[in-house]
Parts: sequence; structure tokens; C-alpha cells
Amino acid sequence: MPMSPPAKPGQSFAEIDTPALILDLDAFERNLVAMAAFAEAAGMRLRPHAKTHKSPEIALRQIAHGAVGQCCQKVSEAEVLVAGGITDVLVTNEVIGASKLDRLARLARDARIGLCVDHVDGVREAAEAAQREGVVLDVLVELDIGGRRCGVAPGEAAVRLAEAVARHNSLQFRGVQAYHGAAQHMRSIDERQEAIERAMLSTRNAVERLSNAGLPCEIVSGAGTGTFELEGRSGVWNELQCGSYIFMDADYARNRKADGTTFDSFEHALFVLAGVMSKPVPDRAIVDAGHKAAAVDSGMPVPYGRSGLIYTKPSDEHGVLTGDPIAVPHRGDTVLLVPGHCDPTVNLHDWYVCVRGLSGPDAHVEAVWPVAARGALT
Amino acid sequence: MPMSPPAKPGQSFAEIDTPALILDLDAFERNLVAMAAFAEAAGMRLRPHAKTHKSPEIALRQIAHGAVGQCCQKVSEAEVLVAGGITDVLVTNEVIGASKLDRLARLARDARIGLCVDHVDGVREAAEAAQREGVVLDVLVELDIGGRRCGVAPGEAAVRLAEAVARHNSLQFRGVQAYHGAAQHMRSIDERQEAIERAMLSTRNAVERLSNAGLPCEIVSGAGTGTFELEGRSGVWNELQCGSYIFMDADYARNRKADGTTFDSFEHALFVLAGVMSKPVPDRAIVDAGHKAAAVDSGMPVPYGRSGLIYTKPSDEHGVLTGDPIAVPHRGDTVLLVPGHCDPTVNLHDWYVCVRGLSGPDAHVEAVWPVAARGALT
Repeated sequence: MPMSPPAKPGQSFAEIDTPALILDLDAFERNLVAMAAFAEAAGMRLRPHAKTHKSPEIALRQIAHGAVGQCCQKVSEAEVLVAGGITDVLVTNEVIGASKLDRLARLARDARIGLCVDHVDGVREAAEAAQREGVVLDVLVELDIGGRRCGVAPGEAAVRLAEAVARHNSLQFRGVQAYHGAAQHMRSIDERQEAIERAMLSTRNAVERLSNAGLPCEIVSGAGTGTFELEGRSGVWNELQCGSYIFMDADYARNRKADGTTFDSFEHALFVLAGVMSKPVPDRAIVDAGHKAAAVDSGMPVPYGRSGLIYTKPSDEHGVLTGDPIAVPHRGDTVLLVPGHCDPTVNLHDWYVCVRGLSGPDAHVEAVWPVAARGALT
Repeated sequence: MPMSPPAKPGQSFAEIDTPALILDLDAFERNLVAMAAFAEAAGMRLRPHAKTHKSPEIALRQIAHGAVGQCCQKVSEAEVLVAGGITDVLVTNEVIGASKLDRLARLARDARIGLCVDHVDGVREAAEAAQREGVVLDVLVELDIGGRRCGVAPGEAAVRLAEAVARHNSLQFRGVQAYHGAAQHMRSIDERQEAIERAMLSTRNAVERLSNAGLPCEIVSGAGTGTFELEGRSGVWNELQCGSYIFMDADYARNRKADGTTFDSFEHALFVLAGVMSKPVPDRAIVDAGHKAAAVDSGMPVPYGRSGLIYTKPSDEHGVLTGDPIAVPHRGDTVLLVPGHCDPTVNLHDWYVCVRGLSGPDAHVEAVWPVAARGALT
């Protein structure tokens, strides 16, 4: 049973129950437009990552702005996306075991479905599942281009794996997954440039070897919100799989541009609205949003538009706001927090409370969208 | 929509899909018995905290072992508990705003319901809500006994607040909430003893002043899994509100006893079962459980029964297992992880997969229980 939504469409901002996950629709829509414009100017396809938002509502808006489909990480996310009307879904991940592969193959009756492989057993298992369901699955070979997570080395191993894919009628080799996760959160542009430059050389090498082996890459997919401008201008990648750009969390906001200023391509559009439960002393207020309302794996949530105030010492259901007493809110007040990390924060909530005119006097709830793939783990 | 359960009753352990939240029923039942025996020997009432488990199934088993009811932190948790048949629920927290208070008061038609206050406005608001619903709410005055979170100073402020409670016919003053959260995870017994000794003096002072003012404390509630033996032997507290003892996470296992050995009153009973997706090199395997399957706010998950193996570098849907190549599992293997912090880990899952005989050859799924109050934020 999902929990009841903390607000209803038509309510004023002040009527939203706390804690709640707030989507600033105006900022969100500007973020959609900005990324679509970048992709178009760069001649890149955009396939945003649904692991960030877990919402067909958001996916459909990205597609309306030109995205070619969606990425996701889990079969259960793909199930929610296809049920929500998305017709082109790429699982940017290995899928292990017949049970998950059969579920994935079943989706290919209604949508174009792809997955990644980094082992020859994965190729065989995917082919068998597709054959059992009478479908064809798209397959990308995942390259390790520096992230040291999954993926094969971007040389002969990739060619051998692609050849294995090509031997199965129930699989279609589409290209390579070349995502450098570790580069996304490097703080300086120099670090990110160096990482993506190396990743580019590796990826180009693999793409050329595949092409020479008669296996051209229709899709060279990668990039995140921290580096997409680099992949976008590389001439090697042709699909961007950024996710966080629609929300912009506090951690991405710590990335720096060449001139040392903060990253400003996108606006903060996602917040946790917290309520003040107690103000025991003038320089400390306790809010009702802790670990179960905002993920802290990439740092603390940051109070929004409240200079002199910091969020600290989260426990499961509490957070502490401290600072200059004049900045510390009072019992019954609410505070917007920019999550440290948007993806796992979204995954804690059942509902997006979509607010129009957030910064103005007529802020109101325009819609409430389910976080439909929240908890989609398998 | 909750996700489909990753297993069905009757399945073998090997058939459980990953990632999954595993409850070792044998260890869990021994933990239930151990805490019940302690409480009985100490002459204490036990009111375990449902913020840990969020499950009426577990609450009912605690009550069958002698617990007097349940604690929780949120009105929405109380709603799930009462709907699940729990008839005595204490919200160990301030409840702010008429909307939440009305929901709480409504529950008092079907169950004994209490809450905490630390401000005179909270007293008035609770009284008004109870009056609107025609019920009586139990009220505890929350004391700050060193945790520096919510709560009033444990002296005259507590007496004044209790007097305010006593002036309302729709409220019943029951005693004090005196929980020292910060003491639970102090590593040495000396630190914990010193913190609880001070907390004891503060709490005793408040209880005596209240008694002298004609407001005896029927309930003096506090303690967690890190310190309950100290509160239990203090002669000041009479209710224990421990939660984590039923599961025992990796962080509590780092607490030390007087002789320097690890805390061993309870067994690890909660795990995240992760599947290996990839083993790109001999000393590194990638599992399918990251930030969305196991909370890392109190440290990394710890591989269970696998010496020489560590879990590191979690990302949203991946974790890295590294170590001696002989210890690193293979693609398709599964690994049990002891969560760093049980409460927020449970809150990531929709289902407990309850396993009987976990450590033996006949390990099987005996039941699947919903994490019924998962996401209960308001």
C-alpha cells in the first residue's frame, strides 16, 4: 500500500503536509528544455535515465521534448515504464538469471527493449529468454571505460562479446554502453575532462574495432549530468543518458566549471519540504525529515534560500537546523531542503507534489504524481 | 503499488530473487525471547519501537512475548499499527499541525494512543484535536536528557508543561519520554555508562519534581538497543523502547562491552540478499544492491560469514565486493549483507522474506510479510 499523498491538486503550498517531495514544475520544465536544446545542438540523441525519477509522467515529458526513450537499471523499472506507455527502454545494466530475463523479454512484446552484457554467459541467457518469449532483445556490450564497475575491457574482449551476440537470432547487437560513473562527481572541470578524454579514447578504440569486425555501433551510449557536455562534443558518443539534470541535487551543484564558478546549466527543481517540530533553543530547530526522507550518501540536504542555516545530525525521522538564531525557523514553519543526492531521495517517497509558482505568492499544487517505480529493486 | 515480493512461501532459499530483505526467523525469534527475558528479569515494561520494523506482523509477535504495545515516530506509522491490530501505540515524538493531530486522535477511538509534547502550543493543539474527535490522548512530556534533539530541559520546564497537560480533560498526563539517542552508538561501555548516568540524574530530577507537583509519572520511557541494560537497572525508567534488537545491524555490532569484546546479546537476523552481476577481475565482484537496497548512513553493509570480503563503493543500484580473490564470489552467486543501519534499510523494501533454517541445507521461505509502514513519512 503506498502512503496517502501529502497534498491534493489545487491546494496552496501552505497546505502541503510534511515531509513531502516537492517538484518545482517551472524549474523542471526549464531543465527539460535546456537539455533538449543541448542535445539537439550537439546532434545527439537523448535517452534520459529513469533511475532518477522512476516516473512515467516524467518520462513522457522528456520524450515530448525529443528524448528517444528511457534508460533504467532494473527489470522492475522497465516494467513500470512500459506499463506507463514508454515504448523504447534500455536497461543500462546486466540482467542476471532466467527469472529476470524472462520478465524483460516479455516486455519486448510491447516495446523495444535493450539490455547490457559483459559476459558470454549473459549473452546466452538473454538469447534463451528472448527465444522462449519469441521476441528480439537489443543488446549493448558494456565497456569499462574507467568506472571500474561492470563492463569488459574496451578492446578485443568487447569484439568477442559482440560476435557472440551477433550469433543469436533472438538478439540484436546495437552498440556499446560506455558510461563513466566515477567521473560525474569530480569537482573540477580539469578532472572531468581528463577522465572523459581517456574514456573517449577507450570508447573510440572499441567502436573502431567493432566496426572493423563488421559490427558497427548504432548506439554509443553514456554520459551523466556531470560530464554530458564533454561526451556531447566528443564525436564518439551518440546517445546521452543523463538523469539528474531534471532535478539538480546539492552534490551536482558542487561541481565547478572552468572559471571555478558552480555548475549552472540547470536549476534545483526537487526539494524535500520539512516541517519544524521543535525549536528548543534559539540556534537549533528540529525538522521532521531525516534518513527516511532524504538520502545522505552524497552529503547533507541543503536548506534552500536560507543563508546562515545548515542541516546537520540527521537521525531516522529528524534533522537538526542550526545557524544564526535569526535564520533558524520556528515551530510550525516549513523549510525546503535541496537533497544531497536526488536518485535515492526520490526512492524514499511515494509521491511527487508538483508545485506551480513555487517562489511566488500564489504557489500551489498543480498535480500529484506517483513515484511509480519506487522500490523497484529486482 | 508495492513491488511484487521477491519470493513466495515454500520456495527454497536459492529461489529468492535479488536483492531481497531477508529475515532469519530463527535468530529473530531468539532475539524476541532474549529481550523479553531481560525486561521480565528487570521488572521493566517493554514497548518496542516500530520505526525499526514497520510491520504489524512483527509487532504482534513482540506483544505475544510480553510487550505492552508499540512505539512509533509518525502518525502514519500509528495508522498502520492500529489497522494491523495493535491496541496501544505511543508516538515517541512531537506531532505538529491540526491535520496530523486529527488523524492521530481518530485512532484513539480504536486504541490507546499517546504522543509527546515539548511546547505549550503542542499541548493546546493536541487537546483541541482530541476534543474534536471526542477522545482522550495520552501525553508524555519529552525531556532533553543529552540527545540535544527535541524535548524540554528536565526541570521546571517539564513541570510547567505537565501542568498544562493536566488542565485539559481531553489529555491524560502519563509521564515522560526520556530517550538518549546519541548514547546508543557510543562505542565503549564507559562512554555509554557516563551518558546514561547523567541522563539518569536528569530524568530522576524531573520525575521527582513532577511527583512533588502532584503529577506522578506512570510511564518513564526510554532506552535503545545500545543502552537498555543501563536504563533497565537504573531504577528510574520503567519502559524500554528498544527497536533494533530484533534485527541487530552492523553498526550496533561495533559497540563494545566492558571487556572490549563485541556486543553479543542479540544475533544478526536481518540481511540484504544481493546477487553478483559481474566479476570483471578476480578480486572484484559487482552486486545488485546499492543505495536503494541498503542504507549507508551508519557505515557500509558487511558481508555475512565471508571473511576476507568487504562491500565498498556503493552506487544507486550497485555495490562492489573486493578482497582476496578466493573469497570473491562469482557471477550468479548470492551474498548475505548485514545492513549498516537496520531502520532505514528496512524502509527501502516492500517485503520481508522470512527464512527458516537460514544457515542449514534446508533453508526455505516460510512467509513473506509486507513492510506495511514503509514510506510512512507524515
